[in-house]
Amino acid sequence: MLQKKKLKLPEVNRLCYTDFIDTFGNVVEKCPLLAAMVWEDNPFTSLDDLQSKFENAVDQLTLTGKSRLLRLLSPFGGKLERAGKLSPESKIERASAGLNTVNADERIRLSELSAKYITKFGFPFIVCARENTKESILKGMERRLNNSVAVEENTAITEIKKIANLRLRDLVEDALISKL
Amino acid sequence: MLQKKKLKLPEVNRLCYTDFIDTFGNVVEKCPLLAAMVWEDNPFTSLDDLQSKFENAVDQLTLTGKSRLLRLLSPFGGKLERAGKLSPESKIERASAGLNTVNADERIRLSELSAKYITKFGFPFIVCARENTKESILKGMERRLNNSVAVEENTAITEIKKIANLRLRDLVEDALISKL
Repeated sequence: MLQKKKLKLPEVNRLCYTDFIDTFGNVVEKCPLLAAMVWEDNPFTSLDDLQSKFENAVDQLTLTGKSRLLRLLSPFGGKLERAGKLSPESKIERASAGLNTVNADERIRLSELSAKYITKFGFPFIVCARENTKESILKGMERRLNNSVAVEENTAITEIKKIANLRLRDLVEDALISKL
Repeated sequence: MLQKKKLKLPEVNRLCYTDFIDTFGNVVEKCPLLAAMVWEDNPFTSLDDLQSKFENAVDQLTLTGKSRLLRLLSPFGGKLERAGKLSPESKIERASAGLNTVNADERIRLSELSAKYITKFGFPFIVCARENTKESILKGMERRLNNSVAVEENTAITEIKKIANLRLRDLVEDALISKL
């Protein structure tokens, strides 16, 4: 759920699990089940605490569970992206990296590298788009294609946590900052 | 994804995992992770085989995982339902039970029983709406409120499988029937 007004931490702690899942269900892309895990850890003492609970939830998945989690992200340059069917969060993130204004050459390169990556690793190339530009994403794809599956699985999980962290900060007010 | 034209089984077996998750991601409500599990079992030999793979995926969850799964369903008479924010599948299913035409008394009874149920069991009342009417859902709530948590957890999982089965049959053509 994308909302305009950020929640304060006490408001987060008062959410029933239905509202919690509705609010945080896509912090980890397409995985409300992780939000259902995290809700059990309430109350949260800070935004950082909430963040680390989401990271723990990801870490607690088995290796197989993690590899399935990676498949829930929509491939860069893939069909869902082209059809405008990304999650609202992904849409905004990819636009912030300039991926909504690719030219014909960039689109082809993106789709080709993306398909190559999926063929090699069995899951899509995952990177925190908001920390990147379309150029760095394309370069990252080329570079990371040389890695081993184990390295890429780890990198992908790290990137999922970065994405989750930024999504959390869109939803919840950071008390440390608001005190300034 | 709600689609008008059902897929034939060979078409299902040709889906890449992204399309598979896009198509079957809500067969188990808000749990594309289970579709990601099931995809690994392709090719499927029949619609019944696909159904049993979804049932296995649910059964393979730990007890804790199952209890989290139960929380992904939106409560009857709850906020999401009133706000029209149910998943498209749930919206149609609940309408088929007449829940889109409740009068004021029924609405209050539904919300009260639903809240009581959640307070007692920690998850929402779960029933396959398409096999019920609003009257039988209200009666079922009253009756099942007397059960133990263990009995209700089992019943809820059975109902989730029934819901999944009907959603699958909306998406995939049953070759046995189409041969008639």
